[in-house]
Amino acid sequence: MAGRELTSLRSPRVKAARRLAKRAFRRRENRFLAEGPQAVREALEIPGGLAELFTTAEAEARHPELVLAAERAGAPVLRVSGEVMAELAQTVTPQGLLAVCEFVDVPLDRALENGPRLVTVLAHVRDPGNAGTVLRTADAAGSETVVFTDASVDPYNGKCVRASAGSLFHLPVVVGPRFDALIPELKGAGLTVLAADGAGDRTLDEAIDEGVLARPTAWVFGNEAWGLPEEILRHVDEVVRVPIYGRAESLNLATAAAVCLYASARAQRGSQGERPSRM
Amino acid sequence: MAGRELTSLRSPRVKAARRLAKRAFRRRENRFLAEGPQAVREALEIPGGLAELFTTAEAEARHPELVLAAERAGAPVLRVSGEVMAELAQTVTPQGLLAVCEFVDVPLDRALENGPRLVTVLAHVRDPGNAGTVLRTADAAGSETVVFTDASVDPYNGKCVRASAGSLFHLPVVVGPRFDALIPELKGAGLTVLAADGAGDRTLDEAIDEGVLARPTAWVFGNEAWGLPEEILRHVDEVVRVPIYGRAESLNLATAAAVCLYASARAQRGSQGERPSRM
Repeated sequence: MAGRELTSLRSPRVKAARRLAKRAFRRRENRFLAEGPQAVREALEIPGGLAELFTTAEAEARHPELVLAAERAGAPVLRVSGEVMAELAQTVTPQGLLAVCEFVDVPLDRALENGPRLVTVLAHVRDPGNAGTVLRTADAAGSETVVFTDASVDPYNGKCVRASAGSLFHLPVVVGPRFDALIPELKGAGLTVLAADGAGDRTLDEAIDEGVLARPTAWVFGNEAWGLPEEILRHVDEVVRVPIYGRAESLNLATAAAVCLYASARAQRGSQGERPSRM
Repeated sequence: MAGRELTSLRSPRVKAARRLAKRAFRRRENRFLAEGPQAVREALEIPGGLAELFTTAEAEARHPELVLAAERAGAPVLRVSGEVMAELAQTVTPQGLLAVCEFVDVPLDRALENGPRLVTVLAHVRDPGNAGTVLRTADAAGSETVVFTDASVDPYNGKCVRASAGSLFHLPVVVGPRFDALIPELKGAGLTVLAADGAGDRTLDEAIDEGVLARPTAWVFGNEAWGLPEEILRHVDEVVRVPIYGRAESLNLATAAAVCLYASARAQRGSQGERPSRM
């Protein structure tokens, strides 16, 4: 079990963890924060994934198996007061468990080496909640990798981690490539690059009917407010729009991504039903 | 143009508008608040829809046409100071325009009288942001009406109004029926009632392949955290699950709704492309 309780925000370990709320420090340390028992379980499934575990006495009593597993995995367990946890955690009602995790992202060539059939690219996605929801949806739809370009939000942002509901740990995530360097790599891996944008010439239904979606596909999703810039639209294979049948002006980014990714899943898999996890 | 600027939060008109942030007062007055130029435009399109318009001097200078249209529609225009607007508005960066709107919901029988082919039901949806996003998605997918049951959040909640991005004004919304009274009405209107739930026996793909989705359909969506209660699942025609191909445990409510509603749109419309608005 953890040693004596840290009650001061000035404790060096606490200060070091708090700094990880900022992107610059996360990048320097290659570590990020993830809250709650589910996140701890996910981090423990990755060898060396859990760097440190902060816990309150109550959370330790509620989840003794997680504390034990963390210790077995060689991760220091630090018991802190409720007050310190409240400062460390980024949620209003912290669950008393906070994992300091090692970065999980992989290089682009590694993510592409096994010939993925469904790749998700977040280009210019700025809202971390939206980004996390797209990551979760991509995972659910069977996307094999998710790429965050350099113009997108940091996937290790606390809100993104929370909105991903564990999916950040589930599939290879690539962080930071420039879009212009990314496109040839995707095409070189045999992927048809489709951008989802309201300005698309073809509807999603037309793309389905013409068999486009049955091919190995990389879907590119853009900014919440203004979509994708011209220089991106010019370099993809096709720009596809989700049809709007009613009077809504547009779809929310995450819902548009869900419709596109599930359309690809259906086109690629037919009606095989769910596959067992590939991991 | 508006008269002298109201600078006091104690002005009776300001106090009356502020109270509309609470559901009990909204119900008493049959009015709700909607922020920003888009909302004002939407309210103006409904005869008698705009009850009052609060504006700042800057917003008036930016949108003189909206102020004029409000006056022509007979809605009092009240100019307030930036401080008063900040108190009235529920967003961090208010846009200087706040509409007091008359309720737009319609009785269930009216919403069903024209034989809708796609109806969306929110049962036990508690998060106003999720509810508004589902409303927006339902509008985009061509759902002809959206029903909020008595166990769901109030569609006139400020967060729901914002997340709906205008869709609250676009299609008939029904508020408050009990689920057990609703089901026979939906079936009586010739609708197949499908519940979306992770516990479903059939996947969405199976429902598509078997032709179920081509029928006139009412989709029922449940709570963000725990789905739909047993007494609801027992009374619908079928429980359908969105397949999970990866390792995500579940989908976010609004993304699951997007996948289901667009699957219905495609099954019902084939590849006709977008239809002109039915309103």
